[in-house]
Amino acid sequence: MLGRKKIEWVSNYMPLLNYIQETYKGVFDGVKIAMGIHLEAKTAYLAITLKKLGAKVFVTGCNPLSTQDDVAEALEEFGIIVHAKRTNDEGVYFKNLNKILDYEPDLILDDGADLSVIVHTKRKELLKNLKGISEETTTGVRRLKNLEENKLLSVPAIAVNNAKMKHLFDNRYGTGQSTWDSIMRNTNILIAGKNIVVAGYGWCGRGIALRAKALGANVIITEVDPIKALEALMDGYRVMKMSEAAKIADIIVTSTGMKDVVKFEDILAMKDGIILANAGHFNVEIPVKEIEKHADKIFDARNNVKGYVINGKKVFVIGEGRLVNLAAADGHPIEIMDISFALQTLSLIYLKENYEKLENKVYDYPESLDIKVASLKLKSLGIDIDKLSEEQKEYLKGF
Amino acid sequence: MLGRKKIEWVSNYMPLLNYIQETYKGVFDGVKIAMGIHLEAKTAYLAITLKKLGAKVFVTGCNPLSTQDDVAEALEEFGIIVHAKRTNDEGVYFKNLNKILDYEPDLILDDGADLSVIVHTKRKELLKNLKGISEETTTGVRRLKNLEENKLLSVPAIAVNNAKMKHLFDNRYGTGQSTWDSIMRNTNILIAGKNIVVAGYGWCGRGIALRAKALGANVIITEVDPIKALEALMDGYRVMKMSEAAKIADIIVTSTGMKDVVKFEDILAMKDGIILANAGHFNVEIPVKEIEKHADKIFDARNNVKGYVINGKKVFVIGEGRLVNLAAADGHPIEIMDISFALQTLSLIYLKENYEKLENKVYDYPESLDIKVASLKLKSLGIDIDKLSEEQKEYLKGF
Amino acid sequence: MLGRKKIEWVSNYMPLLNYIQETYKGVFDGVKIAMGIHLEAKTAYLAITLKKLGAKVFVTGCNPLSTQDDVAEALEEFGIIVHAKRTNDEGVYFKNLNKILDYEPDLILDDGADLSVIVHTKRKELLKNLKGISEETTTGVRRLKNLEENKLLSVPAIAVNNAKMKHLFDNRYGTGQSTWDSIMRNTNILIAGKNIVVAGYGWCGRGIALRAKALGANVIITEVDPIKALEALMDGYRVMKMSEAAKIADIIVTSTGMKDVVKFEDILAMKDGIILANAGHFNVEIPVKEIEKHADKIFDARNNVKGYVINGKKVFVIGEGRLVNLAAADGHPIEIMDISFALQTLSLIYLKENYEKLENKVYDYPESLDIKVASLKLKSLGIDIDKLSEEQKEYLKGF
Amino acid sequence: MLGRKKIEWVSNYMPLLNYIQETYKGVFDGVKIAMGIHLEAKTAYLAITLKKLGAKVFVTGCNPLSTQDDVAEALEEFGIIVHAKRTNDEGVYFKNLNKILDYEPDLILDDGADLSVIVHTKRKELLKNLKGISEETTTGVRRLKNLEENKLLSVPAIAVNNAKMKHLFDNRYGTGQSTWDSIMRNTNILIAGKNIVVAGYGWCGRGIALRAKALGANVIITEVDPIKALEALMDGYRVMKMSEAAKIADIIVTSTGMKDVVKFEDILAMKDGIILANAGHFNVEIPVKEIEKHADKIFDARNNVKGYVINGKKVFVIGEGRLVNLAAADGHPIEIMDISFALQTLSLIYLKENYEKLENKVYDYPESLDIKVASLKLKSLGIDIDKLSEEQKEYLKGF
Repeated sequence: MLGRKKIEWVSNYMPLLNYIQETYKGVFDGVKIAMGIHLEAKTAYLAITLKKLGAKVFVTGCNPLSTQDDVAEALEEFGIIVHAKRTNDEGVYFKNLNKILDYEPDLILDDGADLSVIVHTKRKELLKNLKGISEETTTGVRRLKNLEENKLLSVPAIAVNNAKMKHLFDNRYGTGQSTWDSIMRNTNILIAGKNIVVAGYGWCGRGIALRAKALGANVIITEVDPIKALEALMDGYRVMKMSEAAKIADIIVTSTGMKDVVKFEDILAMKDGIILANAGHFNVEIPVKEIEKHADKIFDARNNVKGYVINGKKVFVIGEGRLVNLAAADGHPIEIMDISFALQTLSLIYLKENYEKLENKVYDYPESLDIKVASLKLKSLGIDIDKLSEEQKEYLKGF
Repeated sequence: MLGRKKIEWVSNYMPLLNYIQETYKGVFDGVKIAMGIHLEAKTAYLAITLKKLGAKVFVTGCNPLSTQDDVAEALEEFGIIVHAKRTNDEGVYFKNLNKILDYEPDLILDDGADLSVIVHTKRKELLKNLKGISEETTTGVRRLKNLEENKLLSVPAIAVNNAKMKHLFDNRYGTGQSTWDSIMRNTNILIAGKNIVVAGYGWCGRGIALRAKALGANVIITEVDPIKALEALMDGYRVMKMSEAAKIADIIVTSTGMKDVVKFEDILAMKDGIILANAGHFNVEIPVKEIEKHADKIFDARNNVKGYVINGKKVFVIGEGRLVNLAAADGHPIEIMDISFALQTLSLIYLKENYEKLENKVYDYPESLDIKVASLKLKSLGIDIDKLSEEQKEYLKGF
Repeated sequence: MLGRKKIEWVSNYMPLLNYIQETYKGVFDGVKIAMGIHLEAKTAYLAITLKKLGAKVFVTGCNPLSTQDDVAEALEEFGIIVHAKRTNDEGVYFKNLNKILDYEPDLILDDGADLSVIVHTKRKELLKNLKGISEETTTGVRRLKNLEENKLLSVPAIAVNNAKMKHLFDNRYGTGQSTWDSIMRNTNILIAGKNIVVAGYGWCGRGIALRAKALGANVIITEVDPIKALEALMDGYRVMKMSEAAKIADIIVTSTGMKDVVKFEDILAMKDGIILANAGHFNVEIPVKEIEKHADKIFDARNNVKGYVINGKKVFVIGEGRLVNLAAADGHPIEIMDISFALQTLSLIYLKENYEKLENKVYDYPESLDIKVASLKLKSLGIDIDKLSEEQKEYLKGF
Repeated sequence: MLGRKKIEWVSNYMPLLNYIQETYKGVFDGVKIAMGIHLEAKTAYLAITLKKLGAKVFVTGCNPLSTQDDVAEALEEFGIIVHAKRTNDEGVYFKNLNKILDYEPDLILDDGADLSVIVHTKRKELLKNLKGISEETTTGVRRLKNLEENKLLSVPAIAVNNAKMKHLFDNRYGTGQSTWDSIMRNTNILIAGKNIVVAGYGWCGRGIALRAKALGANVIITEVDPIKALEALMDGYRVMKMSEAAKIADIIVTSTGMKDVVKFEDILAMKDGIILANAGHFNVEIPVKEIEKHADKIFDARNNVKGYVINGKKVFVIGEGRLVNLAAADGHPIEIMDISFALQTLSLIYLKENYEKLENKVYDYPESLDIKVASLKLKSLGIDIDKLSEEQKEYLKGF
């Protein structure tokens, strides 16, 4: 019942999915869709939407810790097949992924590309029936592109992450808000006046940095890209190497998509009581395993916060170094996911209708669909904008 | 055990109380202190601190919904007498206040002045033993001053709220962060792009507005004070009457200390899905009772969020209109309360040592103690600041 | 003609003075008013306003470099007596002050209190006719209070600076904008990404810091007051001693009202190309004389910017270390001065009508006039705000 | 002498050009370079740099009003041939462009593409000797691409504007600061609390909006692109059609690259005293000619500000509707242009060395040069950033 209530709540703030449910009825009749998602109320409402459009829907997680079990339960009441459980056991996690794939999906809606990579490596027999993949994240797109470069990609894939309405919104406004929502609720510490280190100044990183600054923090950026480093500097942040930043940090948030962004030797240089959180897709950015190995004491410090004593100093890690807004909170704000999921749904419709014409490569998100989602969102907000006149369009062509 | 863990957690981020525990041992030997507080981990650590300084400590709540029962339980293990329970029943709430008073305290540490007002109105026999009151909030100070103006105040009282280190920090940085922490965790909705109305541009209101703006909202202020209204305008906000603002609001947060700030007729003009929250001390700012009376349907929309259907439109109220950061989250950030409680403790020491010399009036917070707390905080952060030279001090005297 | 055009321009954006000209006609009939002001278009329009209200007006400067000669000339065409000239010669400056005083004013409108101090020290014979003083600045109020403490003050004085509509607006929004307007126009350097040190976190300093941060700078605050230092920290700035800040600064702006805020030894530690500016009333905050004494080379680097070579490094000082927004630009924005001058005019009317009842002390600005000016400003903007109902006023009295 | 002093001043804050002067000596020996630029101190220093690298340099303006005559004069003393004059006469302007072209340049450094378009349309005989074009602006790149699409482009062109170090910095931080520098110095009005309409939310527009908000304004965005409109909304701005925004605006700044962004009928709906400024390349965004035609009175309101009376209301236009930061101030901050000009110089070297291998098309800026400039800038600031380890690079290739 609690899961169902959560789903009802989000349906209040998802005007685009509600619109799509009305407008595209029957579009997926007979289509089998496998979803690998952070299973909570918003993704549940996406699954329900796909079902209402006619699809047979099979749902699993895309991260061991991000499944909310009450929501998973509620979803089954809607006639959706679910294999997902919040767990620390990666074996269980992958077993569930495989169970979903057993249904031989026509389309995969992926988040991080775990389903897609399994299909292309360990379970190639499933490629026969598969028509296309729609992938949500930066990390997943990178993995699919690597498959493509290695000539392994066997179906067309759409990089939903590359939609402007995705990476400009989800990664920036979504991650920005939800990362701090999670850190604040899990620690109750003051952000104002703190030295906060954000590793990575991509779209996620700048969202995280912007909100940290807005909450009164003194933000320090680490980067490997000199252009992004300069942008950070001119946005008013300090820019340093991690080995320097670690010494003065009160909180470190990683958001790079890269492994070992914080090194164990950085941990040793940190202040007593340092708080570490990761906002990147995989739990490889903070060296949690090494911390565990070297800790003199490990204890539950608070819900979702683990404490370690190393060389007499306390180190706190939120959500086990998994992406902090999902592993230790409710993920992105509802309206952000409404936009992303409208993109996803239109992407799946596009794949279903065009897969025969498409090559086996990673496609950028179709621009016309991107603009369509933006226009729908503006309409749902009652906002009217200017349009170019014919004369103005003509002017654009001049030289 | 959970309550104790929570208290341990906050002790990591309360350097001032830790310092005071060491420095003022024995100062309250034999002194009975009654505390009316939002009973959660941070106030618990204040109670423990007073106990460690030698006091007999008696604790009750200062708001029916803000007591965390697991913390109350843990506190008793420290040898502190507690009468407090999270409840919707105001009768239970006031019964607990009276139980604490039965111990005939020497000093009252109050938050909202409920204990102090009871002593001065219904239980005047207790005034005999009482030496002084230390009051935390704007609202409580106002009530004590009204007692004074009516010539009813019978002990010296210190307006801790008037300390610079209190109202400049607690009300601004504390309320600013914790109000949004609470609204975000309880709704999971996006703040960016929303029309957010903040009623009242006092220290609390401007903290709330600043953080809302920082999270990307479009903020509208309502005020009754023309000077504050102009400040809001020049800080980049729109300023309107509530009756106008209500029509376009997505979220309304009240923070005025005044009753009926939102009127029921304003509710009728609101958009479907409006979210209402109160950050003022008492639950009088939003007309919850009238909403309940006129609702066609009432339902639990989410933890801490109640839904009402009025004229076919949904209205959501967080934490029953009680102060949202405490009734539906963890209250102010730890470090903020560490400062406020350092002020409180020094205030109680001051009352204990000087009550015979003091008149029965509401005193501003002693400036020297205010500066002392600031200096201790800077020291705990390792920050060194400039000092005036003798020559410079001399310059200040010139004309 | 240029001066007259400047005055016409400002009259477009001074709704309050325009309103007062209409409403209080004749109020100063026969009254002699001496004004010591930064003589530029806005103060000129104040002088014209006083004249239109019936006064005989005598104008001089209040800072040797802040007089704009074309405006001074234009003012004489309006029948106002002016003794003021942009000059580096302090002798000429003080001679002009004395000339104005020769007219035996009834009221003094002062800015920095030079006129008032002369009357109370070197020209006491003028006290006989003098009825009151209205003083604009923090510095001037401090000097008058020191006169009062030394029992030398011989007329009632009103601290216009203490009006909320003055120090909350002029010092914060006015100084904030105009300081950066001046620095940007005089240097053309980029603010974003720079290390900018602001000395002093009073109302002026926080305006300067806020705008610097907003322009993308990394701002460092120096302070002597621990409470203000903590506010700066929680507002997201770094806080240091000047001796540390000087080493990494790209620009230093002083705004303390104190002498020798930057020491010559700090200059020696600075980076090549450092830019120094002062936003405090007197030119005592930056050690210009010592810099001149020790410079190996002095040169005009740009209009209003002097270059010095010390130990092979370049040091640039804007506007000779005098308050940078007036000595090297056009002073506060017009609308800010419209508010301040409305306060000044009402203050002079108040003094004229009540001087016989007043004591010889420095009075805070009358609250009712403060609110009146705020209300007039809101009205001129077409903004309507809420009003307390009788029931709500009653609620405020409760306990 | 004044012009020379200006050039010396900017040389203090152009570390990249200084570095390039040292490092690439002789690279342009014998090469003839025609420059169409906003001729002021910074572009002058670029011309000097090219000359020091061995080139014969010919300079003209790229906008009739943006030439500073004293700088033009000074430049000739450096042995550079200059045909440029601040003028309202477009005939004179184009005559000067043609004079420069008479020298039969090998390379064109263009800003807005006037030189390039003339060569490709009216003076095709010059194409014989021309090896390449390096173009600075969005507008110029659009014009060159239109030439390319019409199969008219006859030499390789490099879109310097497309360099990340250009459009992410120049358009955002440069235009943002310099637009407000210009508006503030030319009007002296308060920005805080004003309704400011920014037309266009491209890189320039968002820089302008960001700084306006930072100065305390209430910013409204107009857009034709629904995605950008939503970004603006989530960045906290209001989004409207121009016809609505015009009614409540205090200041309107256009920055779209499109003509007729403000329509004459919008002018009629505006408030008395409205201020209009354009930050786009061409003076086509504000309908200055129509305003002139319909004005009952035209007058010089202030330096660079023209006043018009239409239907009894005053309308003020800064810098005749030409790009306000150059026509009425000193253009972008020095350090921004240092970056852009380092890009330009490396682009010209690249064209000189590779033109034979290149096709006659508009090339994006070479990524390696982009990163090189970023790295040089970081080095000049003394900032060290992280580098990917071999292991990390390997990780990026995985799937």
